[in-house]
Amino acid sequence: MKRFSEKFILTKKVEWEELGGGVSRKFLGYDNQIMMVQVKFEAGAEGTPHAHFHTQATYVAQGKFEFIIDGVKQIVEGGDGVYIEPNLLHGAKCIEAGILIDVFSPVREDFLDGGAVSYFGDKA
Amino acid sequence: MKRFSEKFILTKKVEWEELGGGVSRKFLGYDNQIMMVQVKFEAGAEGTPHAHFHTQATYVAQGKFEFIIDGVKQIVEGGDGVYIEPNLLHGAKCIEAGILIDVFSPVREDFLDGGAVSYFGDKA
Repeated sequence: MKRFSEKFILTKKVEWEELGGGVSRKFLGYDNQIMMVQVKFEAGAEGTPHAHFHTQATYVAQGKFEFIIDGVKQIVEGGDGVYIEPNLLHGAKCIEAGILIDVFSPVREDFLDGGAVSYFGDKA
Repeated sequence: MKRFSEKFILTKKVEWEELGGGVSRKFLGYDNQIMMVQVKFEAGAEGTPHAHFHTQATYVAQGKFEFIIDGVKQIVEGGDGVYIEPNLLHGAKCIEAGILIDVFSPVREDFLDGGAVSYFGDKA
């Protein structure tokens, strides 16, 4: 199935989707090949370690985060980038409230299908 | 060939690469599947209309831009997103100095090979 977003996503017109745990998101541009998501974290909010088959690149738009990828910890802040190889265990904890731009390839079908958000799936 | 970036790209440690025309960039995370690039524009700087076979998603990190995609014009600013279908003619003009996060899939081999930046290629 062909999935794609509008050409222009004017985020002032889009409500934040609350995911629980101090995390909310807005979908940005996507098709089957790529998906970009704006994810807002309150201080202390956490994406527990998880893995997926998609390549991920993340831009820290605002705030400060501690990432752990395959056992390697790093503090990143506004302007920094993160690259996560497919199937690698990774998680992030928000130190100062902020926004991540998460990009996946291929598209996160699970997000669009309304399924559970995988990075909170391991928390229960 | 397998190409991939470091896991963490701490951009304070990376110099801006001047592309001319008031535009400079830093590479963020990438592999063969995905490439994320931070692109800084001075007011008035322009990416002239061009097309490529890659899917593109762009996040407006700061500033204000006028995009044109396949003849459709739109002003976007901090927090907004843009989705550009493969092979669609597109360009952008910077209205207020800012930063775009351009993401491509697959990787822009042409960028890594040190070739000309395609979005200035039509300007001569």
